Amino acid sequence: MTRSPSPANDDVRMRGFSHRTTVADAISWVDEHGGYLPTMELPLSQAAGRVLAQQIISEVQVPGFARSMMDGYAVRAEETSGATPYNPIAIDVLGEILPGQSPSIPVQPGTAVRIMTGAAMPEGADSVLPAEQVQEGETPDSVQLLGEVSPGKNVGQPGEDISDGDLVLPAHRRLRPQDIGLLSSIGVGTVPVVTAPRVRIVVTGDELLAAGTRPQGYQVTDANGPMLSALVRRDGGEALMEGIIPDSPEAITAALGQPADIILVSGGSSVGQEDHAPMILARLGELAIHGIAIRPSSPTGMGILDGRMVFLLPGNPVSCLCAYDFFAGRAVRSLGGLPSSFPYPVRRMTLSRKLVSVIGRVDYARVAIRGDQVEPLAISGASILSSTTRADGFVVVDEQSEGMPAGAEVEVFLY
Amino acid sequence: MTRSPSPANDDVRMRGFSHRTTVADAISWVDEHGGYLPTMELPLSQAAGRVLAQQIISEVQVPGFARSMMDGYAVRAEETSGATPYNPIAIDVLGEILPGQSPSIPVQPGTAVRIMTGAAMPEGADSVLPAEQVQEGETPDSVQLLGEVSPGKNVGQPGEDISDGDLVLPAHRRLRPQDIGLLSSIGVGTVPVVTAPRVRIVVTGDELLAAGTRPQGYQVTDANGPMLSALVRRDGGEALMEGIIPDSPEAITAALGQPADIILVSGGSSVGQEDHAPMILARLGELAIHGIAIRPSSPTGMGILDGRMVFLLPGNPVSCLCAYDFFAGRAVRSLGGLPSSFPYPVRRMTLSRKLVSVIGRVDYARVAIRGDQVEPLAISGASILSSTTRADGFVVVDEQSEGMPAGAEVEVFLY
Repeated sequence: MTRSPSPANDDVRMRGFSHRTTVADAISWVDEHGGYLPTMELPLSQAAGRVLAQQIISEVQVPGFARSMMDGYAVRAEETSGATPYNPIAIDVLGEILPGQSPSIPVQPGTAVRIMTGAAMPEGADSVLPAEQVQEGETPDSVQLLGEVSPGKNVGQPGEDISDGDLVLPAHRRLRPQDIGLLSSIGVGTVPVVTAPRVRIVVTGDELLAAGTRPQGYQVTDANGPMLSALVRRDGGEALMEGIIPDSPEAITAALGQPADIILVSGGSSVGQEDHAPMILARLGELAIHGIAIRPSSPTGMGILDGRMVFLLPGNPVSCLCAYDFFAGRAVRSLGGLPSSFPYPVRRMTLSRKLVSVIGRVDYARVAIRGDQVEPLAISGASILSSTTRADGFVVVDEQSEGMPAGAEVEVFLY
Repeated sequence: MTRSPSPANDDVRMRGFSHRTTVADAISWVDEHGGYLPTMELPLSQAAGRVLAQQIISEVQVPGFARSMMDGYAVRAEETSGATPYNPIAIDVLGEILPGQSPSIPVQPGTAVRIMTGAAMPEGADSVLPAEQVQEGETPDSVQLLGEVSPGKNVGQPGEDISDGDLVLPAHRRLRPQDIGLLSSIGVGTVPVVTAPRVRIVVTGDELLAAGTRPQGYQVTDANGPMLSALVRRDGGEALMEGIIPDSPEAITAALGQPADIILVSGGSSVGQEDHAPMILARLGELAIHGIAIRPSSPTGMGILDGRMVFLLPGNPVSCLCAYDFFAGRAVRSLGGLPSSFPYPVRRMTLSRKLVSVIGRVDYARVAIRGDQVEPLAISGASILSSTTRADGFVVVDEQSEGMPAGAEVEVFLY
């Protein structure tokens, strides 16, 4: 489908959307165009929180040798038989083995070797008697055993943590701190992870001042650029943004041509005179969906340009957040290998007041926690960003629902 | 308290801990020594996820001017009275106002100005009739109004999102993406946040090879350094680590003197011959706690050196993780302004098998999710790091408990 950007279309374009795609269909479209980006190698020290691109099989065993699990004496278990504090058994100490050292002193019958936790077991010994069960002997080179051990006691066997050939981590695991420790212990110095999506953020609007500038005159300061950058980073993407783009077809076209895996355009997504992005996308690529049955994000579009997903997000900041959460964020998470569902904790709570909605559209209703209930926030305007900072989360009211009464149990997604 | 590191103490030191502090007392010690680090200023683009050091009061109002919420025509509401598709009212169009422009065209009686969403309302107009309710007029400079509006309709009032003087974000808020958007919209370019704690990670052990090296001979590869670095970063700290430190009092003393807000020493934390760190800390500062009634982290110590908290963590990786989660991580989160509690999601689930514990100590029991139940993992050795990567989370068994039977409902902390 293509549309002409000529001024003759203005009246048609100002009439609103002729058709709104359902939220379910828009989500299906995102899922059809998702799929993991290629694998890249990262140093272990940068891999925490990233998504493993392929399973990891160990090529070593951990530990690689039998080791003492206690500070004590490496002995032949049979020689401790009958030892008690009342019947100590004297034994010669041949020396000492520290962690990391080669266990060069074999334990002969009638002897022991002092050993530290983690040190390699010497030949001849099969167990470790803890230091608490040993006292000084009559000569400097002897000790008295005050207890018994069975063979293998207090000895860690080779491969007891990880065997050579073990599947240690499955593909698509989001790496936890202990996973990083485990990978280190088997000698993995670089980790194959799913490439983080590069997400280009194109914020348009002649009325916009750069983020962090004090608003003045009839200009407003861009909220969507910094918000989208933070959302993209939260979802594992790399946010790329180069200032505010003028509301001109040429500038927007140039921005859409920049390197990226996903493009988010904020502002000018609707059907008004200054809404260039939908027409540019339709002309240069495919505008697959334009207008979605969701409040407050109905003027959302999505399509494909040069094989990359492009999302046209409303300029109103609440709509922008909602459209990101439902659609664009799903794409970012999916390309990066993360679960595509909302990245928010979910809690079931009851409504303190009724929540009104309209059949035929999904509602993204901001709610605040009051005690053990949630209250729908009265201000629902798409331009009221403070409604999302005063909210503790949101409730999704599906399109078949007219809302829920006070006291109804709802699923709250917590910001 | 001080202790001599002389060899004459070896036998005493090899006898184990004479006293174990309760987990509750150790946590209280951490909380007594916590408290936020000083404030620092960060650019807005780096502030997401950080903790606000002080409340933010807006010095501007948003929007700063009355603006149109629709694409349409700025009119005097009274002049639309009676307009319907069957009774259109003709009116002259004086011009057009785009977003960001000064509204230089006053609306006189009998006239309207075409206006775009976000543009400033012109003088004389009090409402906006949406474009859908307007059709072309008989001359190029006129339109026909097909509907009525009431005064104020489709107009956003100055300050309706944020008023000058509003408290927009409270102190100690962890900044969400929409908070960043809100701060941008009120012109905040740099944000006062709680300084991230610098956490020095001192990994000791002559038997250790640097992270990511393939283990060989009787040496093992450091798992704790990379794991602790990832844990510290997860908890909002800055991880500082400079290679493996030899098991010598001089090297450990030097490492403890480096700049940091918190020091974590991994390895050599117990009472064995090579466990230098507790004695060094006792001699140079205060070893407040040494030995805790928790499995598998009993050889954990903590104290103060030059006003900074020092945590002595066991070298066994599972013990190290457990001691971090309970004590050191709590300190990191607390200094950085985050909630000090476990940063894991909690879910109530039932045990598929009984979970055995011992009265008098807390157990950190790794569990795996099986269907809708959790199963305690059989391998509980402190050296088996793979038990924490195979686990989906852990259950804390308190010191008054001998464990729980199969079918008991437990609180699972999900990794």
